[in-house]
Amino acid sequence: MDVRAAVAFEAGKPLVIETVQLDGPRYGEVLVEIKATGLCHTDKYTLSGADPEGIFPAILGHEGAGIVVDVGPGVRHLKKGDHVIPLYTPECRECKSCTSHKTNLCTAIRATQGKGLMPDGTSRFSFQGKPVYHYMGCSTFANYTVMPEIALAKIRDDAPFDKVCYIGCGVTTGIGAVLFTAKVEAGANVVVFGLGGIGLNVIQGARMVGADKIIGVDINPEREAMARQFGMTHFVNPKEIEGDVVAHLIELTGGGADYSFECVGNTTLMRQALECCHRGWGVSTIIGVAAAGQEISTRPFQLVTGRRWQGTAFGGARGRSDVPKIVDWYMDGKISIDPLITHVMPLEQINHGFDLMARGESIRGVVVY
Amino acid sequence: MDVRAAVAFEAGKPLVIETVQLDGPRYGEVLVEIKATGLCHTDKYTLSGADPEGIFPAILGHEGAGIVVDVGPGVRHLKKGDHVIPLYTPECRECKSCTSHKTNLCTAIRATQGKGLMPDGTSRFSFQGKPVYHYMGCSTFANYTVMPEIALAKIRDDAPFDKVCYIGCGVTTGIGAVLFTAKVEAGANVVVFGLGGIGLNVIQGARMVGADKIIGVDINPEREAMARQFGMTHFVNPKEIEGDVVAHLIELTGGGADYSFECVGNTTLMRQALECCHRGWGVSTIIGVAAAGQEISTRPFQLVTGRRWQGTAFGGARGRSDVPKIVDWYMDGKISIDPLITHVMPLEQINHGFDLMARGESIRGVVVY
Repeated sequence: MDVRAAVAFEAGKPLVIETVQLDGPRYGEVLVEIKATGLCHTDKYTLSGADPEGIFPAILGHEGAGIVVDVGPGVRHLKKGDHVIPLYTPECRECKSCTSHKTNLCTAIRATQGKGLMPDGTSRFSFQGKPVYHYMGCSTFANYTVMPEIALAKIRDDAPFDKVCYIGCGVTTGIGAVLFTAKVEAGANVVVFGLGGIGLNVIQGARMVGADKIIGVDINPEREAMARQFGMTHFVNPKEIEGDVVAHLIELTGGGADYSFECVGNTTLMRQALECCHRGWGVSTIIGVAAAGQEISTRPFQLVTGRRWQGTAFGGARGRSDVPKIVDWYMDGKISIDPLITHVMPLEQINHGFDLMARGESIRGVVVY
Repeated sequence: MDVRAAVAFEAGKPLVIETVQLDGPRYGEVLVEIKATGLCHTDKYTLSGADPEGIFPAILGHEGAGIVVDVGPGVRHLKKGDHVIPLYTPECRECKSCTSHKTNLCTAIRATQGKGLMPDGTSRFSFQGKPVYHYMGCSTFANYTVMPEIALAKIRDDAPFDKVCYIGCGVTTGIGAVLFTAKVEAGANVVVFGLGGIGLNVIQGARMVGADKIIGVDINPEREAMARQFGMTHFVNPKEIEGDVVAHLIELTGGGADYSFECVGNTTLMRQALECCHRGWGVSTIIGVAAAGQEISTRPFQLVTGRRWQGTAFGGARGRSDVPKIVDWYMDGKISIDPLITHVMPLEQINHGFDLMARGESIRGVVVY
């Protein structure tokens, strides 16, 4: 079938709006009509050419929501008409990772997904007879896509696509890091480095589970107001404090953070986030993705005296199990998404959205098909 | 009263056997007759002068066992005749750390202990009218010492002092790291870097909780036999394998260690111990103490893909609660200590013991008074 897509033909070049061909779903696969998709920094990173694992030509996009329009043979859990969110971290419930019950990092289709292919080793997309690659197993920058059943979360029918698409990546990454990875408990003190979209979702996750102090750290004072709206109780601008920001945070928390989160991808901040944790039990969770080749460091004494260093991907969420819950929380008003979305656009304006992000503007854009 | 002690008058000099004066126990304090004490690398490190926090003159020693001979006013849990193990990590059960139930790092007397003083800010030891400092709150290189009640674990009366003194540091550090810090579960695969005393105790801790593969890593092949006796199932000598030891360990464990332990204090090994852990859930625990100023590093990707990095001190054991249990396990034959003790000596030969350690010999010496 013909689908309308924003195609990344080359690294470092704008996307091209084209009609491409999409084959129907094969065994265990599902054809999804994408109704909305977010523009995420990871798409921008790959499009820029900085991602060493980027493959072209490809249909980017991984933060979508849509409706099942057809299912291939062997599909057991989805049917035509189901509303779904694509999962770049699938949940097969059968691999060593899924059955360990210790991680969300399902490995069932990792090898082919990393190569831009479906699990059978081929692509469903093509342009002028040549294959176009999938991206993060999703490819939501097309109004139809094909995905494995294990990579789709079934959600309720009354959730608006142009909002809950954001649960496909940013919302779940931030809230999940608090709930599923760090398991923050009521009364805890939390420090959040970086008040972009992920940081704001960490903050509302911390509020949701009853954290006490929720301290946001950012050098951009314009981010304070929104962060307070999401639950931040204290704002620290490292440019405005005297002396060491770590010492300042330890004092502000009365001994150190019970939990800290790095939401920027800066290895210096990752170290600060660890070292501002409380002696004996503070846990620091890395969410941000550092540039290739960069390393984190600290003195081992920081760990021997009881701090713990960990990371999270997709917020530790098991997609098919947890994403529908997060959609419910949004629909029930327990979490907020609407104020985070700053730009809504048709697919034709997608390059404009990435241009704003490239300029460093704090935008969160959503394409509605 | 007069007590016989090995006094560290100066850094880098041998200990001097002297008669020193010991004041009686004050409020909340206990007079203990030390019956046996181990010689630990930490004593050697401080005596050498390499420890930036070393204070002289001092009575070193922190791995002891003895009998209560007098108690000061306000002592509630101990009485004359009780058998005890001194705790360099006390357990007050009242401070923020103890009541957090998240750490064993009691802070009740940390400030004074670090200064070589009792909690009231004075020393009980003196020589020729001048104060001699306490060490790690214990000072077991004297046949009598005074300690706060919160820093003494009451143990059963039938446990032999010359064996269970080792539970005051090395045994608990190794076994505790497995049981209390990492919480290794039955069926787990474990990798242990360094097969000295701590490593052997990690190994027998892993055996005790039912680990599957228990892989020891050491460049000294002479350590293999003893480690197998303690439960090691596979031995890896990095000098004898081709290629990268991390890749080798990941293959040997079928994907990576569920738990790894660094028992040497070498920051390169700390990184290897983290990176040989299983994607998604592997936990690496640092036990070894690195030289001052050294740092650990890794790519944050290691953490974002689910490995966790942590450390432990005194094996995460709550001394008054856990040390008596470990004594029971020894008496019940669940753990082994006797083969670890290679040299038993009177106090007068303590310098000979440290000389052997300084030469790098794998000895474990115990002084019996």
